[in-house]
Amino acid sequence: MGEGGDIRVTALRRGEGLAAWRQIADGLEAEIRTGALAAGAQLPTEAALAARFGVNRHTVRRALAVLAERGLVRATQGRGTFVEAPRLAYPIGPRTRFSEIVSRAGREAWGDLIASAEVAAEAEIAADLGLPPGAPVLDLLTLHRADGTPISTARTCLPLPRFAGFDRAYAALGSITRAYAAFGVSDYTRLSTRIGARLAAAEEAARLDLAPGRVLISLASVNADAAGTRIQATRGLFVADRVELVVEG
Amino acid sequence: MGEGGDIRVTALRRGEGLAAWRQIADGLEAEIRTGALAAGAQLPTEAALAARFGVNRHTVRRALAVLAERGLVRATQGRGTFVEAPRLAYPIGPRTRFSEIVSRAGREAWGDLIASAEVAAEAEIAADLGLPPGAPVLDLLTLHRADGTPISTARTCLPLPRFAGFDRAYAALGSITRAYAAFGVSDYTRLSTRIGARLAAAEEAARLDLAPGRVLISLASVNADAAGTRIQATRGLFVADRVELVVEG
Repeated sequence: MGEGGDIRVTALRRGEGLAAWRQIADGLEAEIRTGALAAGAQLPTEAALAARFGVNRHTVRRALAVLAERGLVRATQGRGTFVEAPRLAYPIGPRTRFSEIVSRAGREAWGDLIASAEVAAEAEIAADLGLPPGAPVLDLLTLHRADGTPISTARTCLPLPRFAGFDRAYAALGSITRAYAAFGVSDYTRLSTRIGARLAAAEEAARLDLAPGRVLISLASVNADAAGTRIQATRGLFVADRVELVVEG
Repeated sequence: MGEGGDIRVTALRRGEGLAAWRQIADGLEAEIRTGALAAGAQLPTEAALAARFGVNRHTVRRALAVLAERGLVRATQGRGTFVEAPRLAYPIGPRTRFSEIVSRAGREAWGDLIASAEVAAEAEIAADLGLPPGAPVLDLLTLHRADGTPISTARTCLPLPRFAGFDRAYAALGSITRAYAAFGVSDYTRLSTRIGARLAAAEEAARLDLAPGRVLISLASVNADAAGTRIQATRGLFVADRVELVVEG
Protein backbone atom coordinates (compact mmCIF):
# COMPACT_ATOMS: atom_id res chain seq x y z
CA MET A 1 0.00 0.00 0.00
CA GLY A 2 1.58 3.25 -1.16
CA GLU A 3 1.41 6.86 -0.09
CA GLY A 4 -2.13 7.24 -1.40
CA GLY A 5 -3.31 4.61 1.12
CA ASP A 6 -6.76 3.08 1.26
CA ILE A 7 -7.94 5.10 4.24
CA ARG A 8 -11.53 6.26 4.06
CA VAL A 9 -11.79 8.66 7.00
CA THR A 10 -14.43 11.27 6.22
CA ALA A 11 -13.75 14.99 6.42
CA LEU A 12 -13.20 16.43 9.88
CA ARG A 13 -16.17 17.97 11.64
CA ARG A 14 -15.03 21.47 12.60
CA GLY A 15 -16.44 23.29 15.58
CA GLU A 16 -18.21 20.28 17.11
CA GLY A 17 -15.98 20.11 20.16
CA LEU A 18 -13.94 17.06 19.13
CA ALA A 19 -10.26 17.89 18.52
CA ALA A 20 -8.95 17.16 15.04
CA TRP A 21 -6.32 14.67 16.27
CA ARG A 22 -9.02 12.71 18.10
CA GLN A 23 -11.31 12.64 15.05
CA ILE A 24 -8.43 11.35 12.94
CA ALA A 25 -7.50 8.74 15.55
CA ASP A 26 -11.12 7.59 16.02
CA GLY A 27 -11.69 7.44 12.26
CA LEU A 28 -8.57 5.36 11.63
CA GLU A 29 -9.40 3.16 14.63
CA ALA A 30 -12.86 2.42 13.20
CA GLU A 31 -11.30 1.42 9.86
CA ILE A 32 -8.82 -0.87 11.61
CA ARG A 33 -11.50 -2.47 13.81
CA THR A 34 -13.81 -3.14 10.85
CA GLY A 35 -10.90 -4.56 8.85
CA ALA A 36 -11.05 -1.86 6.14
CA LEU A 37 -7.42 -1.26 7.12
CA ALA A 38 -6.07 -4.79 7.48
CA ALA A 39 -3.29 -6.07 9.73
CA GLY A 40 0.06 -5.40 8.09
CA ALA A 41 -1.17 -2.51 5.92
CA GLN A 42 1.08 0.54 5.83
CA LEU A 43 -0.46 3.90 6.69
CA PRO A 44 0.23 6.91 4.45
CA THR A 45 3.11 9.10 5.64
CA GLU A 46 2.56 11.87 8.18
CA ALA A 47 2.94 14.43 5.39
CA ALA A 48 0.35 12.67 3.22
CA LEU A 49 -2.11 12.38 6.10
CA ALA A 50 -1.59 16.04 7.05
CA ALA A 51 -2.29 17.11 3.47
CA ARG A 52 -5.37 14.93 3.22
CA PHE A 53 -6.96 16.25 6.43
CA GLY A 54 -5.79 19.82 6.04
CA VAL A 55 -4.03 19.75 9.41
CA ASN A 56 -0.40 20.19 10.43
CA ARG A 57 1.94 17.26 10.98
CA HIS A 58 1.89 17.75 14.74
CA THR A 59 -1.84 16.95 14.71
CA VAL A 60 -1.26 13.80 12.65
CA ARG A 61 1.58 12.75 14.92
CA ARG A 62 -0.67 13.07 17.96
CA ALA A 63 -3.39 10.95 16.30
CA LEU A 64 -0.84 8.25 15.39
CA ALA A 65 0.58 8.30 18.93
CA VAL A 66 -2.92 7.61 20.28
CA LEU A 67 -3.35 4.68 17.88
CA ALA A 68 0.04 3.29 18.89
CA GLU A 69 -0.94 3.61 22.55
CA ARG A 70 -4.15 1.67 21.82
CA GLY A 71 -1.98 -1.06 20.26
CA LEU A 72 -3.52 -0.57 16.81
CA VAL A 73 -0.47 0.59 14.85
CA ARG A 74 3.28 0.32 15.23
CA ALA A 75 5.81 2.85 13.96
CA THR A 76 8.94 1.18 12.63
CA GLN A 77 12.01 3.42 12.50
CA GLY A 78 12.63 4.49 8.92
CA ARG A 79 10.02 2.16 7.43
CA GLY A 80 6.69 3.76 8.33
CA THR A 81 3.60 3.02 10.40
CA PHE A 82 1.84 -0.31 10.08
CA VAL A 83 -1.49 -1.72 11.26
CA GLU A 84 -0.96 -4.27 14.02
CA ALA A 85 -2.64 -7.67 14.08
CA PRO A 86 -5.56 -7.55 16.53
CA ARG A 87 -4.63 -8.62 20.03
CA LEU A 88 -6.09 -11.92 21.18
CA ALA A 89 -8.66 -11.30 23.94
CA TYR A 90 -7.71 -13.78 26.67
CA PRO A 91 -10.28 -14.20 29.47
CA ILE A 92 -8.82 -14.92 32.91
CA GLY A 93 -11.12 -16.87 35.21
CA PRO A 94 -12.07 -20.30 36.56
CA ARG A 95 -12.40 -21.73 33.03
CA THR A 96 -9.26 -20.31 31.41
CA ARG A 97 -7.97 -22.70 28.73
CA PHE A 98 -5.53 -21.56 26.06
CA SER A 99 -6.71 -23.98 23.38
CA GLU A 100 -10.41 -23.08 23.76
CA ILE A 101 -9.74 -19.33 23.81
CA VAL A 102 -7.67 -19.44 20.63
CA SER A 103 -10.13 -21.76 18.85
CA ARG A 104 -13.07 -19.52 19.74
CA ALA A 105 -11.16 -16.60 18.17
CA GLY A 106 -11.16 -18.61 14.93
CA ARG A 107 -7.44 -19.34 15.16
CA GLU A 108 -5.60 -22.62 15.42
CA ALA A 109 -4.04 -23.37 18.81
CA TRP A 110 -1.00 -25.54 19.38
CA GLY A 111 1.50 -25.93 22.19
CA ASP A 112 5.05 -27.17 21.65
CA LEU A 113 6.96 -28.98 24.36
CA ILE A 114 10.44 -27.41 24.44
CA ALA A 115 11.88 -29.29 27.38
CA SER A 116 10.83 -31.25 30.43
CA ALA A 117 12.53 -32.51 33.57
CA GLU A 118 11.73 -34.05 36.90
CA VAL A 119 12.93 -31.51 39.48
CA ALA A 120 12.66 -30.64 43.17
CA ALA A 121 10.03 -27.89 43.50
CA GLU A 122 11.39 -24.47 44.45
CA ALA A 123 9.69 -22.72 47.39
CA GLU A 124 7.12 -20.68 45.51
CA ILE A 125 6.02 -23.51 43.18
CA ALA A 126 5.77 -25.92 46.12
CA ALA A 127 3.58 -23.43 48.01
CA ASP A 128 1.30 -23.05 44.97
CA LEU A 129 0.88 -26.83 44.82
CA GLY A 130 0.44 -27.27 48.58
CA LEU A 131 3.57 -29.44 48.70
CA PRO A 132 6.70 -29.23 50.88
CA PRO A 133 9.64 -27.42 49.23
CA GLY A 134 11.77 -29.85 47.27
CA ALA A 135 8.85 -32.20 46.52
CA PRO A 136 9.23 -33.89 43.11
CA VAL A 137 7.44 -32.20 40.22
CA LEU A 138 7.43 -32.52 36.47
CA ASP A 139 8.62 -29.22 35.01
CA LEU A 140 7.52 -28.49 31.41
CA LEU A 141 8.78 -25.64 29.28
CA THR A 142 6.24 -24.92 26.53
CA LEU A 143 5.53 -22.47 23.70
CA HIS A 144 1.96 -21.65 22.66
CA ARG A 145 0.94 -20.48 19.19
CA ALA A 146 -2.18 -19.11 17.55
CA ASP A 147 -2.14 -19.66 13.78
CA GLY A 148 1.60 -20.25 14.09
CA THR A 149 2.40 -16.96 15.86
CA PRO A 150 3.92 -17.37 19.34
CA ILE A 151 1.53 -15.96 21.95
CA SER A 152 3.10 -17.18 25.17
CA THR A 153 5.69 -19.39 26.74
CA ALA A 154 5.33 -21.07 30.11
CA ARG A 155 6.92 -23.19 32.79
CA THR A 156 4.31 -25.60 34.14
CA CYS A 157 4.91 -27.78 37.21
CA LEU A 158 2.77 -30.83 38.01
CA PRO A 159 3.06 -33.11 41.03
CA LEU A 160 4.83 -36.44 40.73
CA PRO A 161 4.33 -39.36 40.62
CA ARG A 162 0.70 -38.63 39.62
CA PHE A 163 1.62 -36.95 36.34
CA ALA A 164 4.67 -38.96 35.31
CA GLY A 165 4.63 -39.10 31.50
CA PHE A 166 2.49 -35.96 31.16
CA ASP A 167 5.28 -34.39 29.07
CA ARG A 168 4.96 -37.13 26.44
CA ALA A 169 1.18 -36.73 26.38
CA TYR A 170 1.56 -32.97 25.97
CA ALA A 171 4.09 -33.33 23.16
CA ALA A 172 1.66 -35.63 21.31
CA LEU A 173 -1.54 -33.67 21.98
CA GLY A 174 -0.33 -30.03 21.98
CA SER A 175 -2.70 -28.99 24.76
CA ILE A 176 -2.74 -29.10 28.56
CA THR A 177 -6.50 -29.78 28.51
CA ARG A 178 -6.11 -32.77 26.19
CA ALA A 179 -3.11 -34.09 28.12
CA TYR A 180 -5.12 -33.92 31.37
CA ALA A 181 -7.94 -35.86 29.71
CA ALA A 182 -5.40 -38.56 28.84
CA PHE A 183 -4.59 -38.70 32.58
CA GLY A 184 -8.25 -39.02 33.57
CA VAL A 185 -8.60 -35.35 34.58
CA SER A 186 -11.73 -34.40 32.65
CA ASP A 187 -12.17 -31.04 34.34
CA TYR A 188 -9.98 -28.50 36.12
CA THR A 189 -10.41 -25.02 37.54
CA ARG A 190 -8.19 -21.94 37.79
CA LEU A 191 -7.88 -21.02 41.49
CA SER A 192 -5.91 -17.80 41.12
CA THR A 193 -3.83 -15.75 38.70
CA ARG A 194 -1.23 -13.13 39.63
CA ILE A 195 -0.42 -10.70 36.82
CA GLY A 196 2.67 -8.55 36.30
CA ALA A 197 4.67 -7.20 33.37
CA ARG A 198 8.35 -6.82 32.47
CA LEU A 199 10.78 -6.67 29.58
CA ALA A 200 11.64 -9.85 27.70
CA ALA A 201 15.07 -11.32 28.36
CA ALA A 202 17.07 -12.09 25.21
CA GLU A 203 16.39 -15.83 25.35
CA GLU A 204 12.66 -15.32 25.95
CA ALA A 205 12.44 -12.84 23.07
CA ALA A 206 14.13 -15.32 20.73
CA ARG A 207 11.79 -18.12 21.82
CA LEU A 208 8.73 -15.88 21.22
CA ASP A 209 10.02 -14.56 17.87
CA LEU A 210 10.22 -11.00 19.23
CA ALA A 211 12.68 -8.15 18.97
CA PRO A 212 14.66 -7.96 22.25
CA GLY A 213 13.40 -5.58 24.90
CA ARG A 214 9.69 -5.98 24.10
CA VAL A 215 7.14 -6.14 26.89
CA LEU A 216 5.77 -9.37 28.35
CA ILE A 217 2.77 -9.88 30.62
CA SER A 218 3.67 -12.42 33.33
CA LEU A 219 1.06 -14.73 34.84
CA ALA A 220 1.51 -16.98 37.85
CA SER A 221 -1.46 -19.32 38.04
CA VAL A 222 -2.68 -22.32 40.03
CA ASN A 223 -5.16 -24.95 38.80
CA ALA A 224 -7.02 -27.63 40.76
CA ASP A 225 -8.83 -30.79 39.69
CA ALA A 226 -12.54 -31.43 40.30
CA ALA A 227 -11.76 -32.69 43.82
CA GLY A 228 -9.97 -29.41 44.65
CA THR A 229 -6.49 -30.95 44.61
CA ARG A 230 -3.88 -28.54 43.25
CA ILE A 231 -2.49 -30.10 40.10
CA GLN A 232 -0.71 -27.29 38.28
CA ALA A 233 1.46 -24.24 38.99
CA THR A 234 2.30 -22.25 35.88
CA ARG A 235 4.55 -19.25 35.22
CA GLY A 236 3.50 -17.89 31.85
CA LEU A 237 4.85 -15.02 29.74
CA PHE A 238 2.47 -13.49 27.17
CA VAL A 239 3.59 -11.14 24.40
CA ALA A 240 1.90 -7.85 25.34
CA ASP A 241 1.57 -6.77 21.68
CA ARG A 242 -0.36 -9.94 20.85
CA VAL A 243 -2.68 -10.46 23.84
CA GLU A 244 -5.09 -8.52 26.01
CA LEU A 245 -6.24 -10.20 29.22
CA VAL A 246 -9.92 -9.80 30.08
CA VAL A 247 -11.40 -10.11 33.56
CA GLU A 248 -15.19 -10.06 33.68
CA GLY A 249 -16.94 -8.69 36.75
CA MET B 1 24.82 -2.26 54.26
CA GLY B 2 28.36 -3.08 53.21
CA GLU B 3 30.06 -5.97 51.50
CA GLY B 4 29.68 -8.25 54.48
CA GLY B 5 25.90 -7.95 54.21
CA ASP B 6 23.33 -9.16 56.69
CA ILE B 7 22.29 -12.18 54.68
CA ARG B 8 21.63 -15.30 56.72
CA VAL B 9 21.27 -18.00 54.10
CA THR B 10 22.39 -21.30 55.58
CA ALA B 11 24.98 -23.49 53.94
CA LEU B 12 24.01 -25.17 50.71
CA ARG B 13 22.67 -28.70 50.85
CA ARG B 14 24.87 -30.66 48.46
CA GLY B 15 23.62 -33.74 46.65
CA GLU B 16 19.94 -33.26 47.50
CA GLY B 17 18.86 -32.59 43.93
CA LEU B 18 18.34 -28.83 44.25
CA ALA B 19 20.80 -26.82 42.15
CA ALA B 20 23.07 -24.41 44.06
CA TRP B 21 21.74 -21.32 42.21
CA ARG B 22 18.20 -22.26 43.12
CA GLN B 23 19.09 -22.83 46.81
CA ILE B 24 20.76 -19.42 46.91
CA ALA B 25 17.80 -17.75 45.16
CA ASP B 26 15.23 -19.46 47.42
CA GLY B 27 17.22 -18.63 50.55
CA LEU B 28 17.57 -14.96 49.66
CA GLU B 29 13.91 -14.85 48.63
CA ALA B 30 12.85 -16.17 52.03
CA GLU B 31 14.93 -13.46 53.75
CA ILE B 32 13.37 -10.77 51.59
CA ARG B 33 9.83 -12.05 52.13
CA THR B 34 10.27 -12.23 55.91
CA GLY B 35 11.81 -8.76 55.95
CA ALA B 36 15.20 -9.94 57.23
CA LEU B 37 16.53 -8.28 54.09
CA ALA B 38 14.54 -5.04 53.99
CA ALA B 39 13.48 -2.99 50.98
CA GLY B 40 16.35 -0.76 49.86
CA ALA B 41 19.07 -2.95 51.38
CA GLN B 42 22.09 -3.58 49.17
CA LEU B 43 23.11 -7.18 48.55
CA PRO B 44 26.78 -8.17 48.88
CA THR B 45 28.70 -8.16 45.59
CA GLU B 46 28.71 -11.20 43.31
CA ALA B 47 32.28 -11.91 44.37
CA ALA B 48 31.38 -11.73 48.07
CA LEU B 49 28.36 -13.99 47.59
CA ALA B 50 30.40 -16.47 45.55
CA ALA B 51 33.04 -16.64 48.28
CA ARG B 52 30.45 -17.05 51.01
CA PHE B 53 28.63 -19.95 49.33
CA GLY B 54 31.73 -21.55 47.84
CA VAL B 55 30.36 -21.35 44.31
CA ASN B 56 31.52 -19.57 41.17
CA ARG B 57 30.23 -16.16 40.13
CA HIS B 58 28.19 -17.65 37.31
CA THR B 59 26.10 -19.52 39.89
CA VAL B 60 25.57 -16.34 41.92
CA ARG B 61 24.64 -14.43 38.78
CA ARG B 62 22.01 -17.01 37.90
CA ALA B 63 20.52 -16.81 41.41
CA LEU B 64 20.38 -13.00 41.24
CA ALA B 65 18.80 -13.15 37.77
CA VAL B 66 16.04 -15.36 39.19
CA LEU B 67 15.44 -12.90 42.04
CA ALA B 68 15.30 -10.00 39.56
CA GLU B 69 12.82 -11.93 37.44
CA ARG B 70 10.67 -12.46 40.53
CA GLY B 71 10.73 -8.69 41.08
CA LEU B 72 12.56 -9.03 44.41
CA VAL B 73 15.83 -7.28 43.58
CA ARG B 74 17.00 -4.74 41.05
CA ALA B 75 20.53 -4.48 39.66
CA THR B 76 21.57 -0.86 39.12
CA GLN B 77 24.41 -0.36 36.66
CA GLY B 78 27.62 0.35 38.55
CA ARG B 79 25.92 0.67 41.94
CA GLY B 80 25.02 -2.87 42.92
CA THR B 81 21.95 -4.98 43.57
CA PHE B 82 19.19 -3.74 45.87
CA VAL B 83 16.14 -5.27 47.50
CA GLU B 84 12.95 -3.96 45.89
CA ALA B 85 9.97 -2.72 47.88
CA PRO B 86 7.31 -5.44 47.90
CA ARG B 87 4.79 -5.10 45.10
CA LEU B 88 1.30 -4.11 46.14
CA ALA B 89 -1.11 -7.03 45.57
CA TYR B 90 -4.04 -5.49 43.72
CA PRO B 91 -7.15 -7.69 43.42
CA ILE B 92 -9.16 -7.23 40.21
CA GLY B 93 -12.85 -8.05 40.55
CA PRO B 94 -16.35 -6.69 41.18
CA ARG B 95 -15.22 -4.89 44.34
CA THR B 96 -11.95 -3.35 43.15
CA ARG B 97 -11.30 -0.04 44.95
CA PHE B 98 -7.85 1.54 45.04
CA SER B 99 -8.27 3.22 48.42
CA GLU B 100 -9.47 0.05 50.19
CA ILE B 101 -6.74 -2.12 48.65
CA VAL B 102 -3.97 0.23 49.71
CA SER B 103 -5.39 0.74 53.19
CA ARG B 104 -5.72 -3.01 53.74
CA ALA B 105 -2.02 -3.31 52.84
CA GLY B 106 -1.32 -0.98 55.76
CA ARG B 107 -0.38 1.90 53.48
CA GLU B 108 -1.93 5.32 53.10
CA ALA B 109 -3.90 5.88 49.88
CA TRP B 110 -4.38 9.21 48.20
CA GLY B 111 -5.37 10.32 44.70
CA ASP B 112 -4.34 13.68 43.22
CA LEU B 113 -6.45 15.40 40.60
CA ILE B 114 -4.00 16.55 37.92
CA ALA B 115 -6.49 17.96 35.43
CA SER B 116 -10.12 17.75 34.43
CA ALA B 117 -12.20 18.83 31.47
CA GLU B 118 -15.63 18.40 29.99
CA VAL B 119 -15.06 16.68 26.65
CA ALA B 120 -16.92 14.83 23.89
CA ALA B 121 -16.43 11.10 24.49
CA GLU B 122 -14.19 9.34 21.97
CA ALA B 123 -15.58 6.16 20.39
CA GLU B 124 -14.13 3.59 22.79
CA ILE B 125 -15.01 5.50 25.97
CA ALA B 126 -18.54 6.16 24.70
CA ALA B 127 -19.00 2.44 23.97
CA ASP B 128 -17.81 1.56 27.51
CA LEU B 129 -20.38 3.96 28.97
CA GLY B 130 -23.21 2.88 26.64
CA LEU B 131 -23.39 6.41 25.23
CA PRO B 132 -23.30 7.68 21.64
CA PRO B 133 -19.85 8.84 20.46
CA GLY B 134 -19.34 12.50 21.25
CA ALA B 135 -21.63 12.44 24.31
CA PRO B 136 -20.45 14.86 27.01
CA VAL B 137 -18.29 13.33 29.74
CA LEU B 138 -16.15 14.65 32.56
CA ASP B 139 -12.57 13.55 31.92
CA LEU B 140 -10.30 13.37 35.01
CA LEU B 141 -6.55 12.84 34.93
CA THR B 142 -5.43 11.47 38.29
CA LEU B 143 -2.35 10.13 40.08
CA HIS B 144 -2.65 7.49 42.83
CA ARG B 145 -0.16 7.04 45.64
CA ALA B 146 0.48 4.49 48.38
CA ASP B 147 2.50 6.01 51.24
CA GLY B 148 3.47 8.79 48.85
CA THR B 149 4.86 6.51 46.12
CA PRO B 150 3.06 6.78 42.77
CA ILE B 151 1.36 3.47 41.97
CA SER B 152 -0.81 4.41 39.02
CA THR B 153 -2.16 7.21 36.89
CA ALA B 154 -5.52 7.15 35.17
CA ARG B 155 -7.92 8.88 32.85
CA THR B 156 -11.45 8.47 34.20
CA CYS B 157 -14.56 9.49 32.23
CA LEU B 158 -17.97 9.95 33.88
CA PRO B 159 -21.24 10.85 32.16
CA LEU B 160 -22.49 14.44 32.24
CA PRO B 161 -24.56 16.17 33.47
CA ARG B 162 -24.97 13.57 36.25
CA PHE B 163 -21.42 13.94 37.57
CA ALA B 164 -20.83 17.65 36.99
CA GLY B 165 -18.55 18.82 39.82
CA PHE B 166 -17.16 15.32 40.49
CA ASP B 167 -13.67 16.70 39.80
CA ARG B 168 -13.94 19.15 42.71
CA ALA B 169 -15.24 16.39 45.01
CA TYR B 170 -12.34 14.14 43.97
CA ALA B 171 -9.76 16.88 44.53
CA ALA B 172 -11.11 17.41 48.05
CA LEU B 173 -11.60 13.75 49.02
CA GLY B 174 -8.69 12.03 47.21
CA SER B 175 -10.74 8.93 46.37
CA ILE B 176 -13.21 7.88 43.66
CA THR B 177 -15.21 5.89 46.24
CA ARG B 178 -15.57 8.90 48.56
CA ALA B 179 -16.39 11.23 45.67
CA TYR B 180 -19.13 8.84 44.51
CA ALA B 181 -20.56 8.83 48.04
CA ALA B 182 -20.73 12.63 47.87
CA PHE B 183 -22.82 12.16 44.70
CA GLY B 184 -25.18 9.71 46.36
CA VAL B 185 -23.55 6.62 44.79
CA SER B 186 -23.03 4.47 47.87
CA ASP B 187 -22.06 1.35 45.95
CA TYR B 188 -20.60 0.51 42.55
CA THR B 189 -19.38 -2.60 40.78
CA ARG B 190 -16.59 -3.36 38.32
CA LEU B 191 -18.14 -4.87 35.19
CA SER B 192 -14.97 -5.70 33.29
CA THR B 193 -11.22 -5.05 33.14
CA ARG B 194 -9.01 -5.44 30.07
CA ILE B 195 -5.32 -5.78 30.89
CA GLY B 196 -2.28 -5.09 28.72
CA ALA B 197 1.28 -3.87 29.18
CA ARG B 198 3.62 -1.46 27.43
CA LEU B 199 6.57 0.87 27.96
CA ALA B 200 6.01 4.20 29.71
CA ALA B 201 6.07 7.29 27.48
CA ALA B 202 8.37 10.05 28.75
CA GLU B 203 5.54 12.16 30.15
CA GLU B 204 3.94 9.18 31.91
CA ALA B 205 7.27 8.15 33.41
CA ALA B 206 7.82 11.66 34.77
CA ARG B 207 4.33 11.75 36.28
CA LEU B 208 4.88 8.36 37.96
CA ASP B 209 8.39 9.25 39.19
CA LEU B 210 9.94 6.52 37.06
CA ALA B 211 13.01 6.23 34.87
CA PRO B 212 11.92 6.44 31.21
CA GLY B 213 11.31 3.19 29.39
CA ARG B 214 9.99 1.28 32.40
CA VAL B 215 7.07 -1.10 32.03
CA LEU B 216 3.45 -0.18 32.76
CA ILE B 217 0.43 -2.46 33.16
CA SER B 218 -2.54 -0.89 31.36
CA LEU B 219 -6.10 -1.43 32.58
CA ALA B 220 -9.27 -0.45 30.76
CA SER B 221 -12.18 -0.83 33.17
CA VAL B 222 -15.90 -0.13 33.37
CA ASN B 223 -17.92 0.44 36.56
CA ALA B 224 -21.69 0.51 37.08
CA ASP B 225 -23.85 1.82 39.91
CA ALA B 226 -26.21 -0.36 41.97
CA ALA B 227 -28.91 0.02 39.31
CA GLY B 228 -26.52 -1.33 36.65
CA THR B 229 -26.05 2.04 34.92
CA ARG B 230 -22.51 2.47 33.57
CA ILE B 231 -20.99 5.38 35.43
CA GLN B 232 -17.25 5.13 34.83
CA ALA B 233 -14.78 4.24 32.07
CA THR B 234 -11.17 4.30 33.22
CA ARG B 235 -7.84 3.88 31.41
CA GLY B 236 -5.29 3.22 34.13
CA LEU B 237 -1.52 2.74 33.99
CA PHE B 238 0.10 0.86 36.89
CA VAL B 239 3.86 0.76 37.52
CA ALA B 240 4.72 -2.91 36.92
CA ASP B 241 7.58 -2.80 39.47
CA ARG B 242 5.21 -1.63 42.20
CA VAL B 243 2.02 -3.65 41.64
CA GLU B 244 0.92 -7.21 41.03
CA LEU B 245 -2.67 -7.73 39.90
CA VAL B 246 -4.49 -10.68 41.49
CA VAL B 247 -7.48 -12.46 39.97
CA GLU B 248 -9.11 -15.03 42.23
CA GLY B 249 -10.98 -17.99 40.78
